[in-house]
Amino acid sequence: MAPPSPVLALSLGEPAGIGPDITLAAWLLRDARHLPAFFATGDAELLRRRAALLGLDIPVRECTPEDAAAVFSHALPIVPAGPSATAAPGRPDATSATAACAAIDSAVALVKAGRAAAVVTNPISKAVLYADGFAFPGHTEYLAHLAGTPALRPVMMIWSPELAVVPATIHVPLSEVSRLFTRELLIETARITAHDLRQRFGIAAPRLAICGLNPHAGEDGTLGREDEDVTRPAVEALRQAGIDARGPLPADTLFHAAARRTYDAAIGAYHDQVLAPAKALAFDRAVNVTLGLPFVRTSPDHGTAFDLAGTGRADPSSLIEALRLARQLAERDAANAAHHLLSERQPLHAEPG
Amino acid sequence: MAPPSPVLALSLGEPAGIGPDITLAAWLLRDARHLPAFFATGDAELLRRRAALLGLDIPVRECTPEDAAAVFSHALPIVPAGPSATAAPGRPDATSATAACAAIDSAVALVKAGRAAAVVTNPISKAVLYADGFAFPGHTEYLAHLAGTPALRPVMMIWSPELAVVPATIHVPLSEVSRLFTRELLIETARITAHDLRQRFGIAAPRLAICGLNPHAGEDGTLGREDEDVTRPAVEALRQAGIDARGPLPADTLFHAAARRTYDAAIGAYHDQVLAPAKALAFDRAVNVTLGLPFVRTSPDHGTAFDLAGTGRADPSSLIEALRLARQLAERDAANAAHHLLSERQPLHAEPG
Repeated sequence: MAPPSPVLALSLGEPAGIGPDITLAAWLLRDARHLPAFFATGDAELLRRRAALLGLDIPVRECTPEDAAAVFSHALPIVPAGPSATAAPGRPDATSATAACAAIDSAVALVKAGRAAAVVTNPISKAVLYADGFAFPGHTEYLAHLAGTPALRPVMMIWSPELAVVPATIHVPLSEVSRLFTRELLIETARITAHDLRQRFGIAAPRLAICGLNPHAGEDGTLGREDEDVTRPAVEALRQAGIDARGPLPADTLFHAAARRTYDAAIGAYHDQVLAPAKALAFDRAVNVTLGLPFVRTSPDHGTAFDLAGTGRADPSSLIEALRLARQLAERDAANAAHHLLSERQPLHAEPG
Repeated sequence: MAPPSPVLALSLGEPAGIGPDITLAAWLLRDARHLPAFFATGDAELLRRRAALLGLDIPVRECTPEDAAAVFSHALPIVPAGPSATAAPGRPDATSATAACAAIDSAVALVKAGRAAAVVTNPISKAVLYADGFAFPGHTEYLAHLAGTPALRPVMMIWSPELAVVPATIHVPLSEVSRLFTRELLIETARITAHDLRQRFGIAAPRLAICGLNPHAGEDGTLGREDEDVTRPAVEALRQAGIDARGPLPADTLFHAAARRTYDAAIGAYHDQVLAPAKALAFDRAVNVTLGLPFVRTSPDHGTAFDLAGTGRADPSSLIEALRLARQLAERDAANAAHHLLSERQPLHAEPG
């Protein structure tokens, strides 16, 4: 079986943000950091203007996805997508939303068609998209829509070599967390996490640490009932389904080095409970990974940083980690998919004995 | 003016817990770790039995606080307090609660009388105390009661060389945090923190980072109103009172190394928001410091660990840090108090010119 395309599709993101800056910076570091080959999707002229503004002598070359791997060594490959993006750094304009979406659309379509291995996305501005009539809560939901599997729920993981965390509830007011934190939500989040840890991270029997919602995991119900009524039964159901889940565990003692060695991912009840420790440990290298999609998608774990666009001070570290992780996940995913296909055609019990 | 007593009073804590174990271990490391002199308060026989069980040849010497500094170099000084503590390791008994409280009472009384410099407390078991009729929510509230200043509110700080954090609400269900998080609470917490950072930590103009309660600090009110209605006005009031407070700040981007250099303490809305990152960064060395008391009090940031008592596997690191920090805070506190007395008697403007 031929290996899948190893080239990654990288959407340029909000044109006025730092997406173009860190894309250029990452390409410059392609050898020093052993980066996998990638091509950008979006407006080539935008990239050329940003390179000139930053004083970077980088050739930007329009090409097809199939040519991108060969181009990558001597030029930054871009598969043109969408309209001209006219926004100046830090100042999104009327072309921004359309350009940002077209770049995402193109990257997803190419991955779905097998012409790229995974989607990596540069940051977009939700405010800019909303002002243009964008109807999705965010980047991830838009990707799930493009994936065309509406029954499926995308799950956000923040990954670094130090720690992988998944919040069960995400961008909701803290006062609503207790109501939204249900057994069904926790079980589904943990199942999707365990599946992707097996399928894409290559962990045969993933170990999940499940945080209690309340301080000290509720101290047997004396500090809130949720961990007895929701977390504990959910963990029990997961274990009965063969998933190695433990909890409810107190979040404040779960993230030091010795504790981290006991699990592969920690699932928290809400945003700050797990993202604050994750970014405390690995701020520059944290990668946003979307689990539960039919393709691999990673993203740098920061925003558009309008104030840094065009200044030369944008840090490409998180994008670089996102590219490296996307490559690893896509390779493992493809190998497992090939293995599954092979297993279906030649099941072990049918082998000649 | 004579220097204050530099000797620390260390309560032995729950007799069946690891308090005796880590007290013995810390004394053994007194030279290697440059520990300040301390004496224990509690039952001397309990300490001797635990030393024998652990196979440690440590002389335990009953003495007065005034003799403790001289004794410390060659024996573990103890100022007897309370009844015989008969509990075996891991098995609290009917003498446990009385012994634990008597040790605290003695340490506080000696510090209030000027016979010790600060209180350091070994862990107690709230469950054991409650079963015995203990009427205080916890250790800290009991200390505030003994301090005899009922109008004053003790404030918990978790301190390490990497990060100091203060949660505004502490041991309450997450679902109640939004209701309990008021301007008054946040302002008072920040004022007490700023006062003690000046008076005891020697920071002339403390910088406080105030976390938003909601994810992303509420994104201008779109993810919950609390950060616009409570946090922002509280920060404004603090600034008008001359305190260098900033916020509401998103908690998930506040704890990496570069961010930590911009403040002296971070004040969070609730327990896990700040304790999870603090213990992720410095689990073994985190110290619990009670601010707002009329004396210095520190404590190791862990519990009684009944399963480790008497096994030789209890880690004294946090107690060692608690002893070192107590000494530093007490010295600074005494120097500032002496300076204030001097200033009152000989104000600068009355000096002969």
